[in-house]
Amino acid sequence: MSNSFPPVEEQLTIIRRGVEKIVPEDELAKKLQHSRDTNTPLRIKYGIDPTGIDVHLGHTVPLRKIRQFQELGHKAVIIIGNYTAMVGDPSGRDEARATRLTEEQIEANAVDYLNQIGKVIDIESAEVHRNGGWFSKMTFAEILHLCGRVTVAQLLTRDDFAKRYREEKPIYLHECLYPVMQAWDSVEIQADVELGGTEQLYSLMLARDLQAQRKLNQQIAVMSPILVGTDGRQRMGKSLGNYIGISEEPFEMIKKFMQLPDDVMRMYFELLTDIPLEEVGQILGGHPKDAKQKLGATVVDQYHEAGQGNAAVERWEAGIGS
Amino acid sequence: MSNSFPPVEEQLTIIRRGVEKIVPEDELAKKLQHSRDTNTPLRIKYGIDPTGIDVHLGHTVPLRKIRQFQELGHKAVIIIGNYTAMVGDPSGRDEARATRLTEEQIEANAVDYLNQIGKVIDIESAEVHRNGGWFSKMTFAEILHLCGRVTVAQLLTRDDFAKRYREEKPIYLHECLYPVMQAWDSVEIQADVELGGTEQLYSLMLARDLQAQRKLNQQIAVMSPILVGTDGRQRMGKSLGNYIGISEEPFEMIKKFMQLPDDVMRMYFELLTDIPLEEVGQILGGHPKDAKQKLGATVVDQYHEAGQGNAAVERWEAGIGS
Repeated sequence: MSNSFPPVEEQLTIIRRGVEKIVPEDELAKKLQHSRDTNTPLRIKYGIDPTGIDVHLGHTVPLRKIRQFQELGHKAVIIIGNYTAMVGDPSGRDEARATRLTEEQIEANAVDYLNQIGKVIDIESAEVHRNGGWFSKMTFAEILHLCGRVTVAQLLTRDDFAKRYREEKPIYLHECLYPVMQAWDSVEIQADVELGGTEQLYSLMLARDLQAQRKLNQQIAVMSPILVGTDGRQRMGKSLGNYIGISEEPFEMIKKFMQLPDDVMRMYFELLTDIPLEEVGQILGGHPKDAKQKLGATVVDQYHEAGQGNAAVERWEAGIGS
Repeated sequence: MSNSFPPVEEQLTIIRRGVEKIVPEDELAKKLQHSRDTNTPLRIKYGIDPTGIDVHLGHTVPLRKIRQFQELGHKAVIIIGNYTAMVGDPSGRDEARATRLTEEQIEANAVDYLNQIGKVIDIESAEVHRNGGWFSKMTFAEILHLCGRVTVAQLLTRDDFAKRYREEKPIYLHECLYPVMQAWDSVEIQADVELGGTEQLYSLMLARDLQAQRKLNQQIAVMSPILVGTDGRQRMGKSLGNYIGISEEPFEMIKKFMQLPDDVMRMYFELLTDIPLEEVGQILGGHPKDAKQKLGATVVDQYHEAGQGNAAVERWEAGIGS
């Protein structure tokens, strides 16, 4: 069983691909070395909100990174934020969340989400936790203790809070507790690595602080960039209509790929495929139409049977997709 | 039993004496009228921290106000903040509170405190609650809901928080929860009036908001001024050595009264005695030494057997107190 993990440098090359920032970067190599020396997989945390999501390519960016960790021999640990979903938005500011979901709806959303991401990660070998498991048992005193590690000034360094504070838009006190809860999840599941966006840097680092306090290993933040949508400008999202869903039909997906602006293709190849970066360079040196077809066919095959991508491209070429 | 309460205007005169601010003032008369019409005492809330206190004259200012409400026929409701005392200061910033008190110490402090204030208010007829009774049972979800009524910007309007934020001194997140907890106490005990200082205005008003949400009557804040110490400059406090404790010997108390700066006497007469204000004016028109003797003897008699005040003054006059 020993040496079942690839050499550290090999792992780092795969992990670093398409990643915006790793904090602290030097610790990651040490963790990987220790994992290899002791033949112990790292615990790779990723948290989601079970509020009803149609998974699109933007979501697959961190999920594909988990998949890569899994292929390197590490353990995926998925946290379903069912406790926070149950609370909704008590301020009533966020109308979408003001109507609280029932426990049944939340659980149905969680199951549906796990089914969807089973197309990206190996869900069978992943650990799945619902954070209600620990938060429903926490006392007020424990919450006050947790909050004693966080200052208001630190919270206001978070991009979204800083912006709202400057613009004199309300930041509610319960929202200040959410990053603390996210950090606490890492203590509970003893995360070695957490995946997230750079806007979550604060929670990702607070988790390190809480882990150190309890003499646990500290997690490393592996932060992905935000995938731009098919409009080439804004973050991919359902409400903006600039998304490609992973459950869409191959032909629908190909049509959207063919309409991509040329300048987002490098990002899409890097974040959404495993095609080696030198090869990506060659592809992008050719005709943009060929590049989009290659990109589209590769991505479609990930979420449909092999060959469906090229079949859809041929159908598009035949001009049936008008 | 009907009309056992004095007329509203008579009550208002007593309640307003020495009070800095009543918010909202117009509602107090209505509440008193309704109390009189329905022969129902108002519930007068006052909260204390059982962290080990030697009660001094500064503490007696709100306590004497409670006593006045009791004499008018209303109900004193004392909240012992045992739950927050148990938490201490998790940030470690406040060294005095960093060493957590045990439950036994907190309970001993509470009993000791109740004994001491029994010299000021009628403790037999008062209701006493420990807030651990409700906070120990509260879930994280309930706490998040409570916090959904409070914004960071509102919290930063509190004098002490605003000052620290300006000076870039840390405000910890658990401290933001304390005013919310104080406000929640008012919901639990259905307070009609809460006594406090003007620096607590935020919590006192948040309690009204939380009460209204739950269709309860809203409390009125009756805010006392801060008693200046025997140095005539700073707030009376043990650490500054500028205090007169209510358990001190009569002669010790008189010595301190005789050293008071002349210009604090009006405040002391108004806040610490029931001598009618016209009479106070006459006393202050005479010799300052006589005024101090009258003030000292009156206050000493409140906390010792009647006549002890004058006896101590005579001893002081005889030059024994050199």
